[in-house]
Amino acid sequence: MVNVAMVGAGQTKYGNHPLGLKGMWAEAAEQAFASVDGDFEPRQVDEAFIGSLAFGGAQLGNTAALLTEHSGMNGVPVRRVENACASSGYALRDAWMAIKSGQADVVVAGGIEKMNDLTPERKRYWLGVSGDTEWERLAGLTFPGTYALMARRHFHEHGSSHDDLVHISVKNHLHGSLNPKAHIQKEVSFEKAASGFMVADPLTLYDCCPTSDGASCVVLAADHVARQLTDTPVWINGSGAASDHLALHDRPSITRLAATQKASKQAYEQAGITADDIDLAEVHDCFTIAELMATEDLGFAARGQGGVFARDGAGRLNEGAVTVNASGGLKSKGHPLGATGTGQAVEVFHQLRHEVTHGRQVRDAEVALTHNVGGSGATCAVHVFGREVA
Amino acid sequence: MVNVAMVGAGQTKYGNHPLGLKGMWAEAAEQAFASVDGDFEPRQVDEAFIGSLAFGGAQLGNTAALLTEHSGMNGVPVRRVENACASSGYALRDAWMAIKSGQADVVVAGGIEKMNDLTPERKRYWLGVSGDTEWERLAGLTFPGTYALMARRHFHEHGSSHDDLVHISVKNHLHGSLNPKAHIQKEVSFEKAASGFMVADPLTLYDCCPTSDGASCVVLAADHVARQLTDTPVWINGSGAASDHLALHDRPSITRLAATQKASKQAYEQAGITADDIDLAEVHDCFTIAELMATEDLGFAARGQGGVFARDGAGRLNEGAVTVNASGGLKSKGHPLGATGTGQAVEVFHQLRHEVTHGRQVRDAEVALTHNVGGSGATCAVHVFGREVA
Repeated sequence: MVNVAMVGAGQTKYGNHPLGLKGMWAEAAEQAFASVDGDFEPRQVDEAFIGSLAFGGAQLGNTAALLTEHSGMNGVPVRRVENACASSGYALRDAWMAIKSGQADVVVAGGIEKMNDLTPERKRYWLGVSGDTEWERLAGLTFPGTYALMARRHFHEHGSSHDDLVHISVKNHLHGSLNPKAHIQKEVSFEKAASGFMVADPLTLYDCCPTSDGASCVVLAADHVARQLTDTPVWINGSGAASDHLALHDRPSITRLAATQKASKQAYEQAGITADDIDLAEVHDCFTIAELMATEDLGFAARGQGGVFARDGAGRLNEGAVTVNASGGLKSKGHPLGATGTGQAVEVFHQLRHEVTHGRQVRDAEVALTHNVGGSGATCAVHVFGREVA
Repeated sequence: MVNVAMVGAGQTKYGNHPLGLKGMWAEAAEQAFASVDGDFEPRQVDEAFIGSLAFGGAQLGNTAALLTEHSGMNGVPVRRVENACASSGYALRDAWMAIKSGQADVVVAGGIEKMNDLTPERKRYWLGVSGDTEWERLAGLTFPGTYALMARRHFHEHGSSHDDLVHISVKNHLHGSLNPKAHIQKEVSFEKAASGFMVADPLTLYDCCPTSDGASCVVLAADHVARQLTDTPVWINGSGAASDHLALHDRPSITRLAATQKASKQAYEQAGITADDIDLAEVHDCFTIAELMATEDLGFAARGQGGVFARDGAGRLNEGAVTVNASGGLKSKGHPLGATGTGQAVEVFHQLRHEVTHGRQVRDAEVALTHNVGGSGATCAVHVFGREVA
């Protein structure tokens, strides 16, 4: 079976981006193409997968083809992949499978979202409709409320507290302050993050990710091509994915995401590693409680010990066994829905090539993980990467 | 490389369907599961791909997971695939690649659209936004207008006429009258179809497909599993796909679809066949002129001779070398956007197993093709099927 590597990666700055869909995508794709070490032309791309929840304005159908047309890939077979906020995590999986299938040697996976041309009401609608509709959204539950329920339950079951969440927020703001592509590039103090205005009890402003525009793009290649294109390929050694009930009440537990557990187990097995081998993880912290649960679900902390893990600063840059969200995570780097999954892969690409600047490089990083969640856990994709092929 | 077969297929009736998204999908999926000859449980599915342009009402993100949850496949990795009206043609391609990649043995590909809970204005918006936005939609060009331009140009370049299009409409209504799953199950006379009210000159009502609800689903399996599940697998011997400029003015010609030509060439080469080997073809006749051009682009008629092909009745059931749109096609079977691609595969499944009733069986059918187009040709997927593996 053919091995698959990332050979190029690019992304826009996340935030209130001045460009529209075509401009943002072209910026990310051109960066990705330019980052390939050897001579590389977009015409070499055999297949493309672009993730987006709703693109944002202007174009509803066939937008994937519109974007490849505007980035030198006219003619390439391309489709949009949608799984709410896990859209480009799945685009990455599907691109990886396309190469493994033997049908393509060079494949683009990317994601994009334009969120800031919508009214606040339409944004709320968008986000709400990625969870359960009948029992949650129509009853008035928004996503902060959904994750607040998870937090309250975790506090109750495991003795964690809001202070644990504050530690996560402070850490991710610190990391984001070192990332020139981040939406929010400033540190916050523990005191400030602890006293943010309430959004959905117990979650405050500093527990919630911002509303970001952005695009991200990675170039994958089959092993024989990858080695021609670069001396430092970043291998995708495992891909796992799963789905779950949309409504919280259908799940046996709301203090873990079964889809994360299944997807990571599959990815670890494929790569022949365990959580202990991971040097850095980009995890889906749409809310701080989501990162806390992810550290447990991915095996970095024991069940119920995510709060202790956060309190101990175990995920801080180069301080523990694993750096969690070196990029700043969704909390600070930003969360342009469909762009987030491949945006995590962009961070891993640079980290595993040891080329990250601004004091944000994870020392001696050899193995990395990305964790991308759709909705409140209805879909999840986990990928494991290495400097060496598994 | 592993070979891939269809081992099950199901679909709802197309039309004004009384059920919503979950009900329609469950009906199609349950039919598909029940059609597998051996003992089969939805839990055996390893991966799923569901195509939809916009689902229609109720749920915007994560709908693919909602649908698998409601059809016995909770937990399976699933994503929505969107390429306008070619959404499930690409879902089929991606499902096929997932098996070829060695990552999955049993994969579901399906599609769905609920169109009839929208106001006419929103329907027009939906359809319009799958073509070019800046130069076409915002200038007032709708899809009938887009295809009317293609028709006028074809008449001008090749001496075809509206009568040729009427022959296509009459043929597809005849075939649809024999299909209990079709949206429109009645024959029309040449005179009636020739005198329909004008929609976009030269296209009349009888040149345009209806607005349909519907869902379709096929079950694919790797060869070693397929042979356990059925004695009559339908092999997918070739898959081709391509994209093109969205705007007509960017294309060298508007009397052919370059994406169809590229995709079919790729599919034929993979299957080791030519157009002459095809016994039946389900082609994307959103408008009659689209079928006329498809017969040329797919190689059934010589360039410019699609009108002659239609006039001669060459695509009529069991009359020529190839039966075109035995199901009734989009014109008569209906066109629930995202459901159309895998719906074409459902027809092929039954035709190649020689189990079609109501006098609609293509005699001695051995090799078949499906042709699914997104927008006005910006995306296209072509698949070639056989009773024998290539």
